[in-house]
Amino acid sequence: MEILVYREGSDQVEDGLSAEQLPDLLADKSNVVWVDFLADSPERIEEAKDVLLNVFKFHYLTVEDCIETRNQPKIEAFPSYLYFIVHGVRPEETSSSNFVTKELDGYLGENFVVTFHLERFRSIKTVKQQVRSSPFACQRGSAYLLHQILDQLVDLYMPMVEDFDDAINELEERALQMKSGNTLLQELMNLRRSVARLRRISARQLDVLYRMSHGEFPQIPSNILPFFRDVHDHLQRISDLAENYRDLVGGLFDIHFSVIATKTNEVMKTLAVVSAIILPLSLIAGIYGMNFENMPELRTPNGYFLTLGFMGVVTIVLLAYFWRRGWIFQKDLVEIPTEPDSEDQ
Amino acid sequence: MEILVYREGSDQVEDGLSAEQLPDLLADKSNVVWVDFLADSPERIEEAKDVLLNVFKFHYLTVEDCIETRNQPKIEAFPSYLYFIVHGVRPEETSSSNFVTKELDGYLGENFVVTFHLERFRSIKTVKQQVRSSPFACQRGSAYLLHQILDQLVDLYMPMVEDFDDAINELEERALQMKSGNTLLQELMNLRRSVARLRRISARQLDVLYRMSHGEFPQIPSNILPFFRDVHDHLQRISDLAENYRDLVGGLFDIHFSVIATKTNEVMKTLAVVSAIILPLSLIAGIYGMNFENMPELRTPNGYFLTLGFMGVVTIVLLAYFWRRGWIFQKDLVEIPTEPDSEDQ
Amino acid sequence: MEILVYREGSDQVEDGLSAEQLPDLLADKSNVVWVDFLADSPERIEEAKDVLLNVFKFHYLTVEDCIETRNQPKIEAFPSYLYFIVHGVRPEETSSSNFVTKELDGYLGENFVVTFHLERFRSIKTVKQQVRSSPFACQRGSAYLLHQILDQLVDLYMPMVEDFDDAINELEERALQMKSGNTLLQELMNLRRSVARLRRISARQLDVLYRMSHGEFPQIPSNILPFFRDVHDHLQRISDLAENYRDLVGGLFDIHFSVIATKTNEVMKTLAVVSAIILPLSLIAGIYGMNFENMPELRTPNGYFLTLGFMGVVTIVLLAYFWRRGWIFQKDLVEIPTEPDSEDQ
Amino acid sequence: MEILVYREGSDQVEDGLSAEQLPDLLADKSNVVWVDFLADSPERIEEAKDVLLNVFKFHYLTVEDCIETRNQPKIEAFPSYLYFIVHGVRPEETSSSNFVTKELDGYLGENFVVTFHLERFRSIKTVKQQVRSSPFACQRGSAYLLHQILDQLVDLYMPMVEDFDDAINELEERALQMKSGNTLLQELMNLRRSVARLRRISARQLDVLYRMSHGEFPQIPSNILPFFRDVHDHLQRISDLAENYRDLVGGLFDIHFSVIATKTNEVMKTLAVVSAIILPLSLIAGIYGMNFENMPELRTPNGYFLTLGFMGVVTIVLLAYFWRRGWIFQKDLVEIPTEPDSEDQ
Amino acid sequence: MEILVYREGSDQVEDGLSAEQLPDLLADKSNVVWVDFLADSPERIEEAKDVLLNVFKFHYLTVEDCIETRNQPKIEAFPSYLYFIVHGVRPEETSSSNFVTKELDGYLGENFVVTFHLERFRSIKTVKQQVRSSPFACQRGSAYLLHQILDQLVDLYMPMVEDFDDAINELEERALQMKSGNTLLQELMNLRRSVARLRRISARQLDVLYRMSHGEFPQIPSNILPFFRDVHDHLQRISDLAENYRDLVGGLFDIHFSVIATKTNEVMKTLAVVSAIILPLSLIAGIYGMNFENMPELRTPNGYFLTLGFMGVVTIVLLAYFWRRGWIFQKDLVEIPTEPDSEDQ
Repeated sequence: MEILVYREGSDQVEDGLSAEQLPDLLADKSNVVWVDFLADSPERIEEAKDVLLNVFKFHYLTVEDCIETRNQPKIEAFPSYLYFIVHGVRPEETSSSNFVTKELDGYLGENFVVTFHLERFRSIKTVKQQVRSSPFACQRGSAYLLHQILDQLVDLYMPMVEDFDDAINELEERALQMKSGNTLLQELMNLRRSVARLRRISARQLDVLYRMSHGEFPQIPSNILPFFRDVHDHLQRISDLAENYRDLVGGLFDIHFSVIATKTNEVMKTLAVVSAIILPLSLIAGIYGMNFENMPELRTPNGYFLTLGFMGVVTIVLLAYFWRRGWIFQKDLVEIPTEPDSEDQ
Repeated sequence: MEILVYREGSDQVEDGLSAEQLPDLLADKSNVVWVDFLADSPERIEEAKDVLLNVFKFHYLTVEDCIETRNQPKIEAFPSYLYFIVHGVRPEETSSSNFVTKELDGYLGENFVVTFHLERFRSIKTVKQQVRSSPFACQRGSAYLLHQILDQLVDLYMPMVEDFDDAINELEERALQMKSGNTLLQELMNLRRSVARLRRISARQLDVLYRMSHGEFPQIPSNILPFFRDVHDHLQRISDLAENYRDLVGGLFDIHFSVIATKTNEVMKTLAVVSAIILPLSLIAGIYGMNFENMPELRTPNGYFLTLGFMGVVTIVLLAYFWRRGWIFQKDLVEIPTEPDSEDQ
Repeated sequence: MEILVYREGSDQVEDGLSAEQLPDLLADKSNVVWVDFLADSPERIEEAKDVLLNVFKFHYLTVEDCIETRNQPKIEAFPSYLYFIVHGVRPEETSSSNFVTKELDGYLGENFVVTFHLERFRSIKTVKQQVRSSPFACQRGSAYLLHQILDQLVDLYMPMVEDFDDAINELEERALQMKSGNTLLQELMNLRRSVARLRRISARQLDVLYRMSHGEFPQIPSNILPFFRDVHDHLQRISDLAENYRDLVGGLFDIHFSVIATKTNEVMKTLAVVSAIILPLSLIAGIYGMNFENMPELRTPNGYFLTLGFMGVVTIVLLAYFWRRGWIFQKDLVEIPTEPDSEDQ
Repeated sequence: MEILVYREGSDQVEDGLSAEQLPDLLADKSNVVWVDFLADSPERIEEAKDVLLNVFKFHYLTVEDCIETRNQPKIEAFPSYLYFIVHGVRPEETSSSNFVTKELDGYLGENFVVTFHLERFRSIKTVKQQVRSSPFACQRGSAYLLHQILDQLVDLYMPMVEDFDDAINELEERALQMKSGNTLLQELMNLRRSVARLRRISARQLDVLYRMSHGEFPQIPSNILPFFRDVHDHLQRISDLAENYRDLVGGLFDIHFSVIATKTNEVMKTLAVVSAIILPLSLIAGIYGMNFENMPELRTPNGYFLTLGFMGVVTIVLLAYFWRRGWIFQKDLVEIPTEPDSEDQ
Repeated sequence: MEILVYREGSDQVEDGLSAEQLPDLLADKSNVVWVDFLADSPERIEEAKDVLLNVFKFHYLTVEDCIETRNQPKIEAFPSYLYFIVHGVRPEETSSSNFVTKELDGYLGENFVVTFHLERFRSIKTVKQQVRSSPFACQRGSAYLLHQILDQLVDLYMPMVEDFDDAINELEERALQMKSGNTLLQELMNLRRSVARLRRISARQLDVLYRMSHGEFPQIPSNILPFFRDVHDHLQRISDLAENYRDLVGGLFDIHFSVIATKTNEVMKTLAVVSAIILPLSLIAGIYGMNFENMPELRTPNGYFLTLGFMGVVTIVLLAYFWRRGWIFQKDLVEIPTEPDSEDQ
């Protein structure tokens, strides 16, 4: 548990306070208090629980939700505070084939922000550093401080989302080459799952931000609303991209099927051309391999050479026929295209 | 019929009361009365019907709905009570390939909860045990007692839903191997049906909980609303997962088709390579099997060996050609991938 | 035209009244009057039109709608009456491959119900019998009487809807066997059309019932609303099933395509295995059928038998290879699965 | 420009009036004035523009919209008049493979209707004839007159829409026969485009009629609303059918793919059966065509006949095998089904 | 930075004013001031930022949004001004395979319009020329001036959108010919991306225009609303077309798959016919190539010729059989259809 307090008129935040001092700090409405719980051990969870329930007197269902993982982003209004769950990306573990998020729970009151998380958040760390170097974010009140945290958290989605772009382009290229068989299928499925998760999370998160930024809650004063709207707009963009990725991943399956079908078609053509040329020639050879006593051609001195010549003519005629139908001697249709402009906006 | 009564100020619930005492118990508004009907025989159904219509004076359409099965989850408000239908899973019979639910009907009044079911419910049993060991749930009134029952009932969905996750992963693996032919198809269809049922039931149930948790009904006081909201959030998660499973099952069909197409492509390649190599060689053999009298090669002492050598060269050239086109000697593309991380959130 | 009148306090309905008496009957607000027009001939249509326009003074657009067929279910409020169109199934002609409905037009006033139909309705007949044997339904007023008619009409959808279930299961089984070729396709298309019609009709009808059951119209008093809600719930269930059937029919197409693809794959395997085994053997035979003078093997006494033995070895090796790749000697993958549990809820 | 005026109490409409008289005619609020502009030449467009801007004083953006083509149906309210755009079908040019509409612009005021069109409209012509033969439509005021025009215009959609039904049935039949190759594909694409256009136009037009028929505009008095509702219902039916056609056209693609796949399967079976029977026989012949010196069978007097007999036995055994697998001698699966009942409602 | 001022009553706009004069110009509410920032260098961005923040006192989040690219179209209301982002097409770079837009940010106040862009806009240039040649657009106030700019900007979408039409038709033709293999697939994917972008951008932009044109903002007086509605309608049309293009691009994939499948079917037929005719003939030849001593036919003088004749008969019978099944001698089914009428409305 880390407590940061900004006292009105001060030019820096106080640090390193203890839980005992909290009631007094909160009682002075001109303070801005940020309590951050990194509950990464059972003892810390217990400690946090105690403070949340007994000092802040938060509804114990919300405290239970804090501790539980696997919650969706949501926001709930209580008479004197807001409770919210948002999700941040886990950059270390996340890739386009395995999009993972972690939960950040929090409370926003008139003069306090509480954040609770079971794992470290880069965005929390960044805002703490900012606040310590300059109390600017605190001077505007608790809602602005919360905005800073959410802004940082949402900003970290963007690089992840751009990874999707790259992954889709790479898979598109590989689908067009059909080099990697089932690996490709597996990756397509993983990408599809990741995109679905991103869509689900960002849709719910967008809803939380929408409600925060439209003046529904008295804890967020109207002069701070544009800042939340700004975060909302960023998330909107991510959400739109997620919708777009869904379509593009669907398109990758189409390409995949199309390439398999085209390749099979090509194999069939090869087989058909080989068979259609060799089989008739074999028949000719077979006919002159018959053992009838009376086969006049066999005795002509040039019969053999004429037959070979005839075979040559048949071959040329058939090759010409298949060439005209476009079955042979075309430039390879399945080649790697030049990298498409992936600058999706 | 089982009647449990909590009298205000008491520290345990009274048990084993009879229908005759009900009017008095209900008249005292400080009591919290839970009447549970397990109507698993025609006689019990008659008995329950009688109590519901004559003691509680519930609308007889709702009593008819109680007895009837195959109703959808719903909630109806009457001046002095709420009537609701919710569905619980049938864990014994339910699997991911056959998702089955059972109906729980109920009434919520100012100081009573009535539950009616044709089959045993594990959640009912659990709450009864809780209440008997400590009347805590009753002290907060009838709405809180109902919340306890619904909470237990919804919690039992979760393991079922996780079974879907496993089933989808297992089917994905099998689809990638294409070992089980039509059995797979059959299971995919069953899974699709189950997911559709889960989606339908949870969507309707979500609607019931949404209405319960948004202050629409005077029977649920506002301090109890957060508890219902909690159940609603759990159900929301289940509903989201159901939506997700739908997409994933759709993806399994894509994989299935893709694997069939890839396998056919592979078979075609084998056929084409075999034909394209053996047929020309057979033609050569056929030519030297012709019976022309004048075939100079036949008389050369090394003709046979040169021909065999020529056949070898043709074979090597063709093999090289097909190898370069990637038709042969590639590592098998259709192999079992490593188990994907199925930790879907 | 058939007129049934229930006079307040009476214990049976009066029957066989004539159009001339209608104005008096309607003027007495304590009566409940049901006028049923079975307009199955041009004369009866004219007679009905005359009564509707001149006795009841209904808006002539509604009278035109009565006579016209091919209307969608709808409800329209006029100051002193409601006009509605609902659709009943035509059980004689309807099957899962050709879902047909017939129109029932009607009016509901303070003390009257008017029903108009060009074809006989089983539900109308049933309610008439009920009312004649006991005036109970009339005692509660005209809205309750209408509820009785609609309830009967909606109940007759259920057996039809269950036919869909059977048809889907039967087609699924046949799709898995791929025995019936284009007949199957044709039936799938017909089923899809029927399901689309059922969805369309039930969606519109649901809308009519929704409006009837939510207190929008003064003609339906609030104590009768639960009865309409009950009909609404039945229809809701039908509508949900129709949505479900749509997905299942889509799934049948997937199965159909999958089975064709699997069968083609199997045929290809047979062809590939036969070719890959016989062609090399034929080549060997072809080689020893060449007419070179100097072919040492031909003169060895056991050459023939060694060659046959070699051919046997090649066959065994290739069979083993294809067996290991899973192309042969597997149990037939395309078999009839056991009947799935079709108890869809 | 054609001006028709109905003066109150008169029993016929006045005709052949000039633009100069318009201000007086419009000033008398008891008149009903219909001004119809057929602006099929640049001069007439100029003339119309002049009257619309200077006599009627309509907003010049609406006048610009009149002259421009390619507008969507819409309705806009101005203080003293309504401006609307609706689309009629072009029966001469329209077919199910090329659904084309033409624009009708108009204004509705307290005592006038203005219609403006660049092409002739059959519906306009019909209403003019009606009005000239009997002023009935005018007696009810300008809104009723407009209703007459829209009613006629919407009625002309119906035959077109029924053409779609026929086209879909015909294409379904042809898809099942797969006789027409790419022509079919082309027609399917055209039909899909036409259906998309019909859906788009009718959805927007429905919106216009919905707003007209729900009492939003003071120009349409409430006693006229049922008539607009009637037109709305007709359009609703067309819109519903369009939705339905979309699904059916999608189904045609499914049939098309299924038939191609089935045909390919059949071709493959033929090939596999021929190869699997002939290749082994050829191998036998090849073996006895080898030139080994020591091949005892060759010298037995009945060797040849026994070999032929053996070939016969092999053939019969293989035919029996393929017959049992259902690959041969089945009645042709791809046949023309009997015409389906296309009576879609 | 370019400042254009229209002073009331003047007959031309003043030009070439400097930032210092702005406060005075803005203070006089009868002026209409247009400040256009082309911020194509870091210095100009700084200059613009300074004016926006210090002279106009705009919220600095909006100024940040101005400078940032990759924003979606949006509109935000502040007490004394509106902030909006719209997107224009980049005609130079945009093609149907790579639809690109550029951002135009702006502010609308009671008597001013501010436009900010990092790149040149043709629409801005056009309106400047108009305003300089005649101050008409300014006389109606700042909202009308903004309408002019948006109208020009939206008009430039139309040619782009028509390019899509052409691209879809061209790809449809090529898909039907299947000449270009993967290039086609690549172009289909690019087109799909472009259409998706167009849909996304136009949907958001439509939302901006909808809000502008429905009287939500006091900055846009009600007499100017019809002009914004006009722009909205244009955009609506573009948005509708984009929806339509999405369906059509989906249809192109269907055609593509269908053509591949048909071609494969054709190749298979060729292969099957060749095999089914040549293999039996080869068998006959093989039989008479056997070396049995006792083969009576070999010694008959006409055996050879009878055999050849028999082969001819077999050939003719098989050709007739395949011709009757429609496998050969049909006019080529895959031909280029006549160009479809692409006049999509």
